[in-house]
Amino acid sequence: MTQPWSAQLDPWLDQHGCRALLVCADTSTDPWLAPFVGAARLGTCFLIAPRDGTPRLAYLSPMERDEAAASGVELLTPDDLDVQRWARDNASYEEIVAESIAQGLSHCGVAPGRLAIAGRLSAGQVLGVCRDLETDGWHFVAAEEILRRMRRAKSDDDLAEIRRVSAVVEAAFRDVAARLASAAIAADGTLHSADRPLTVGTLRRAIARRFAEHELRQPERNIIGPAEEGAVPHTTGTDDRVLRAGETLIVDLFPKGRLFTDCTRTFCVDEPPEVVTRAHRDVVDALVLAESNARAGIEGWSLQEDVCHLLDERGWPTPISEPSAERGYVHGLGHGVGYALHENPSFREFQFDEGRLIENDVITLEPGLYDPEAGWGIRVEDLYRVTADGVEPLTTLPRGLDPRSW
Amino acid sequence: MTQPWSAQLDPWLDQHGCRALLVCADTSTDPWLAPFVGAARLGTCFLIAPRDGTPRLAYLSPMERDEAAASGVELLTPDDLDVQRWARDNASYEEIVAESIAQGLSHCGVAPGRLAIAGRLSAGQVLGVCRDLETDGWHFVAAEEILRRMRRAKSDDDLAEIRRVSAVVEAAFRDVAARLASAAIAADGTLHSADRPLTVGTLRRAIARRFAEHELRQPERNIIGPAEEGAVPHTTGTDDRVLRAGETLIVDLFPKGRLFTDCTRTFCVDEPPEVVTRAHRDVVDALVLAESNARAGIEGWSLQEDVCHLLDERGWPTPISEPSAERGYVHGLGHGVGYALHENPSFREFQFDEGRLIENDVITLEPGLYDPEAGWGIRVEDLYRVTADGVEPLTTLPRGLDPRSW
Repeated sequence: MTQPWSAQLDPWLDQHGCRALLVCADTSTDPWLAPFVGAARLGTCFLIAPRDGTPRLAYLSPMERDEAAASGVELLTPDDLDVQRWARDNASYEEIVAESIAQGLSHCGVAPGRLAIAGRLSAGQVLGVCRDLETDGWHFVAAEEILRRMRRAKSDDDLAEIRRVSAVVEAAFRDVAARLASAAIAADGTLHSADRPLTVGTLRRAIARRFAEHELRQPERNIIGPAEEGAVPHTTGTDDRVLRAGETLIVDLFPKGRLFTDCTRTFCVDEPPEVVTRAHRDVVDALVLAESNARAGIEGWSLQEDVCHLLDERGWPTPISEPSAERGYVHGLGHGVGYALHENPSFREFQFDEGRLIENDVITLEPGLYDPEAGWGIRVEDLYRVTADGVEPLTTLPRGLDPRSW
Repeated sequence: MTQPWSAQLDPWLDQHGCRALLVCADTSTDPWLAPFVGAARLGTCFLIAPRDGTPRLAYLSPMERDEAAASGVELLTPDDLDVQRWARDNASYEEIVAESIAQGLSHCGVAPGRLAIAGRLSAGQVLGVCRDLETDGWHFVAAEEILRRMRRAKSDDDLAEIRRVSAVVEAAFRDVAARLASAAIAADGTLHSADRPLTVGTLRRAIARRFAEHELRQPERNIIGPAEEGAVPHTTGTDDRVLRAGETLIVDLFPKGRLFTDCTRTFCVDEPPEVVTRAHRDVVDALVLAESNARAGIEGWSLQEDVCHLLDERGWPTPISEPSAERGYVHGLGHGVGYALHENPSFREFQFDEGRLIENDVITLEPGLYDPEAGWGIRVEDLYRVTADGVEPLTTLPRGLDPRSW
């Protein structure tokens, strides 16, 4: 555990009376476990970080011995955990995991008591494992809060990876802009490329190919939302939908390398309706306002209030003026980004420390305006590193609606 | 829930005294939830399937309304769940999820009592949600067993999707074979393509591009294991490793469309060492034996015994003769494939019904032989649909070591 945040863990464990942190998941790509395992690719595995002790990564299959070694973490082997014995005893999955954890804790010199726990397994499995361990005297404390806090401090390696992933995303956006800019407009207004209708799926496949070449994954797909689809912020877009001149197109890409990145642009080929031009200007103004106010010590919610105030003055409904509106500005302003797509800081109200920006947070700011009845949506989202007195932009793309201006 | 397996759920709930099934996850792509949500792409959401009632899918953000509708399942909206109220009350994530679930259950007319539960959240979140609901009189029963059983029965749509994904995988294998077959062999034995060294990474990127074009994801990467890396079955392979003539290369691809598929081939460019030729013949013989014995009613473990017997006779250590060996045949024979990469039937010993093949199971058979000291590994894996009197092969690729023979 060479991360800069390891020093945060011990005081938290101490404060909560916990003897160790246990992070257990059915894959090492789990966002709760991934920060601890480096490049290792494992099935069910767990990390034990004893208070004031050396963390160990436990794996359950000898076939994964080389992958486990790639983690750089001290290991607990299947032999250390007696996995073969539990398997021979015809134990269930939950029993094998629980017995392995008990053996691992004992190996680390951690006697039964309070244990901080996180990591994704299926709910019935979690209950099975915990009930099993509770009979041995273990008591469980939720560890998500401290893990989220630890993950906010980005190492130089983390920042370098986010920059690498962001550069691939920017190239993908420029490719999308070039395809839109060079598309022919048919008599019926549809866009064509190489004599074929240009669809959401065409763009999605081009983006996916580029991400694949750089080993970026899209665990939660992406959003390519034309007109009526973009008007509902989380609609991911229908592949066979043909794109049209004069309509909005939201492209929101959030792939993952070792960490996530997140960026959104809205395009409109040819002349946009006047309301779209105006709304796009208001969204960009809101983004500029938010980024000029953002810095360490500020609450995400206060940035959201600034943006709501501006958009309110421009005549748009906002989450503060009309919490249930589907037209206007209808969502939060941003979120932290890292091992999960949505990390702290939170931009919701009443978030205390989880809502206050700190140095080296990586955040997005993503104001948007939508009109489902009129069938348009606009969102512009940039990524930033928070500094003591402002933000360092990690997105360098143009923000214009017109792909021909890119 | 139009799946053919819905009829299995009610008797199981009845037998376990449960009033409903609850599947809750932080993404609709979760393998426990995905079978229920069709094409919908959602964040935290849950399914309530009341005993003898209509299942409902609950989503927590109004921005996901169109995605939720794409599930084809009756919906519980954020308004139905009073989500805004919990958020206003400054509840934690666990509290919002627990309150939403309580509200959803009440909406479905399910009064507090025993509730079957599954779906992945982080362990501390599961405990928080369940402890919260337990104070309202809910008691939890692990539902993974019945969900795994329900997922075994593949619908026609499921089988069509597995065939679609398998066809893409086969094209990727043929492309790998063509690249290997056409590679130049340098004086030092390394393979070259277009005057550049041919690496694991070159193949991995070509495969990833092809998968991306067909919207296949690789949630658990893939395995491209030359020589010493392939000699440890789950080593995923190092991207900058240059491939060489005369060495083994294991390629094991397991991408996911709506469902997974799984296939492995082993290649050797130019003349393989005699032991590799012999081991490859033994592996293919083991595969042919297993596929000729497989049919509905047979236990996976009995197929494993047949294969161990054959490989034992050929002089190789097996999991039966030498459970801790790292040389020889060192793993299970196969597994079910579906919404998760590893489904039932299990091929482990003492698995009762979970280990007995049934009609329309989709399974892999994947015998292999390995020698970490000598630095080679061989595995050949085909996919099958189980029928009443045998198996229908879903893999149609050649099995030969020599890519020039493909």
